[in-house]
Amino acid sequence: MSENNMLLEAYKETNYQVTSHGKRNVDILKEALKTIDGQQDSDMYGEGKIIEDFQDKMAAYLGKESAIFFPSGTMAQQIALRIWCDQKGIKKVAYHPLCHLEIHEEDGLKELHQIEPILLADKNTIITLDDVMNLNEEISCLLLELPQREIGGQLPDYETIESISIYCRKKGIKLHLDGARLFEILPYYEKSAVEVCALFDSVYVSFYKGIGGVAGAILAGDKSFTDESKIWKRRHGGDLISLYPYIISGDYYFEQRINKMEQYYEGAKELAALYNQCTDVSTVPIQPVSNMFHVHFQWPKEKVEPILVDIYRESGIGLTGHLREVSEKECYFEVSIGDQYNEVPKDQLNAAFQHLNEKLSGVIK
Amino acid sequence: MSENNMLLEAYKETNYQVTSHGKRNVDILKEALKTIDGQQDSDMYGEGKIIEDFQDKMAAYLGKESAIFFPSGTMAQQIALRIWCDQKGIKKVAYHPLCHLEIHEEDGLKELHQIEPILLADKNTIITLDDVMNLNEEISCLLLELPQREIGGQLPDYETIESISIYCRKKGIKLHLDGARLFEILPYYEKSAVEVCALFDSVYVSFYKGIGGVAGAILAGDKSFTDESKIWKRRHGGDLISLYPYIISGDYYFEQRINKMEQYYEGAKELAALYNQCTDVSTVPIQPVSNMFHVHFQWPKEKVEPILVDIYRESGIGLTGHLREVSEKECYFEVSIGDQYNEVPKDQLNAAFQHLNEKLSGVIK
Repeated sequence: MSENNMLLEAYKETNYQVTSHGKRNVDILKEALKTIDGQQDSDMYGEGKIIEDFQDKMAAYLGKESAIFFPSGTMAQQIALRIWCDQKGIKKVAYHPLCHLEIHEEDGLKELHQIEPILLADKNTIITLDDVMNLNEEISCLLLELPQREIGGQLPDYETIESISIYCRKKGIKLHLDGARLFEILPYYEKSAVEVCALFDSVYVSFYKGIGGVAGAILAGDKSFTDESKIWKRRHGGDLISLYPYIISGDYYFEQRINKMEQYYEGAKELAALYNQCTDVSTVPIQPVSNMFHVHFQWPKEKVEPILVDIYRESGIGLTGHLREVSEKECYFEVSIGDQYNEVPKDQLNAAFQHLNEKLSGVIK
Repeated sequence: MSENNMLLEAYKETNYQVTSHGKRNVDILKEALKTIDGQQDSDMYGEGKIIEDFQDKMAAYLGKESAIFFPSGTMAQQIALRIWCDQKGIKKVAYHPLCHLEIHEEDGLKELHQIEPILLADKNTIITLDDVMNLNEEISCLLLELPQREIGGQLPDYETIESISIYCRKKGIKLHLDGARLFEILPYYEKSAVEVCALFDSVYVSFYKGIGGVAGAILAGDKSFTDESKIWKRRHGGDLISLYPYIISGDYYFEQRINKMEQYYEGAKELAALYNQCTDVSTVPIQPVSNMFHVHFQWPKEKVEPILVDIYRESGIGLTGHLREVSEKECYFEVSIGDQYNEVPKDQLNAAFQHLNEKLSGVIK
């Protein structure tokens, strides 16, 4: 068994895990289906009460004229950018170097849509108004990911988004929101989804991150935009005869968790503070602005792993199942706070962190 | 209420419906999930026991080295053709004018992959060896749909497929099977899936036609082919974090129905004979070669509708909920035999057809 598997196995054997909503197993779907009358008709190729009701509900929640349910955000976002590029006749968009489309989609945007992305900002920083103003190429659309997941879920000031939105409208650049974690940032901004989305021409949100559903996404905007997105959804092979397993679970967990985003955010701030008290450990951002953050150890991965395994076994508390190497001297992992955090006894959690800090302080690197 | 809606409403109110497996409602999924331990882990982005086991099972059933589960056939087939085109460096394929890719996918193949299709055969006939041999352009792949759904589910002789397969291999043309209804034609050919698929380089099968699952498809072929298909699946936005709702239902109904294809085929032949006994009615094909066929009335649609509504109300037996216009003098509908056919009392069915024939014979057109 590799060190990494040892960490994951030790994590799975703990009594309490500080991150996420829990296991992604079939019960997630079964629980959601319990609330649904089995005689309820399936959606059929994007039509029917079960899909239309949810789309209408999400359009209202996001403050957009129309919303379309997609099997994935990958599909929804490529399509959004394609529509904006076709409308302007310029096949260029701008986004962050660690944008999902750039690093997780096997270059679908380039291979399927021949769209060229301009990368804005350094990969460790978030996009600023200056980055947008300094663009010296014409683009059809700017994509902002809020929060910027791959760098710990960092966020710009709300005023920055507002000024980028004003600038883009003036320049005829469409502004698209990668809102995979939109629900999770609303407590920090103290804004409604409607207020945030009003700054954007198109919006994607996900139902399996903070919401914890099975899969699925919503793409929202003006009706002319979403009508076109349905044609592309068919082209991509996403207009399935039935999407209801994802819709039912998305809706069920939306209702369960949409009002718990503040709780997750507070949990993230509390947990990040515990990490930041440890020697050679720091979080990005230092103070989280959503339910997520990254934890960096100024230690080699192979030295952190056995320490974490010991902590898990001693305390019964699991912090993470995965460590990623940054360099020979640094490693990190991602934290997303969900329902499980509040179940962890605080005294045991504090004791675990005390042990962690002792090990990090006492052992020679 | 339009005539067409009257027909559908009258159909829904019948005690027995001769086509399909029954309603597509949420119970379809609930029933399949009952057999699954809720603690079973979700698949994760194409990995995990639940997806890998089903892929292995289908690869074995189809006699291919490897199989990949896709959310839709639309996605799977575009990707298959793309891979074969890229491999040969020629962006041309050949298929039937009423191929699913040509008429139901909003031109995804052209818009997303820039692949040009050459249409073979007249739209009312099936592709012959001569059609393939007379091609005067170089193509990367030939797609055969067995059975050809849009013309009633017609099939070539098995020897024709064999000779097309031999010809394509000799000419360096890849042969792809649109096997949306592959399971349904095996009783007619008296062949196993392995035998039929051995004639093709790549194969797609569906889990919501004869199988009656919720949605989903398998694409099978050599491992190098399916490995590449996984990259394209990610690009299309089809590599969902969880596909298990479709996999579980696909597997459950596969087990329930794979051995009933003979029964459906026999039912189709019996029912088609009843239609062919009626004045001005004929089926395509005259004798079905799978569980499906088309029923053509040499009558205007608006005159057939009220006759069918009367028959449904008198007999309690529903024949179809939809009629499609061919011309001012002709209309048709599609029949797919499933579990419901055997539940229809034969004496009532015969009486209904006697009434239908009386009405068609006795009324002035």
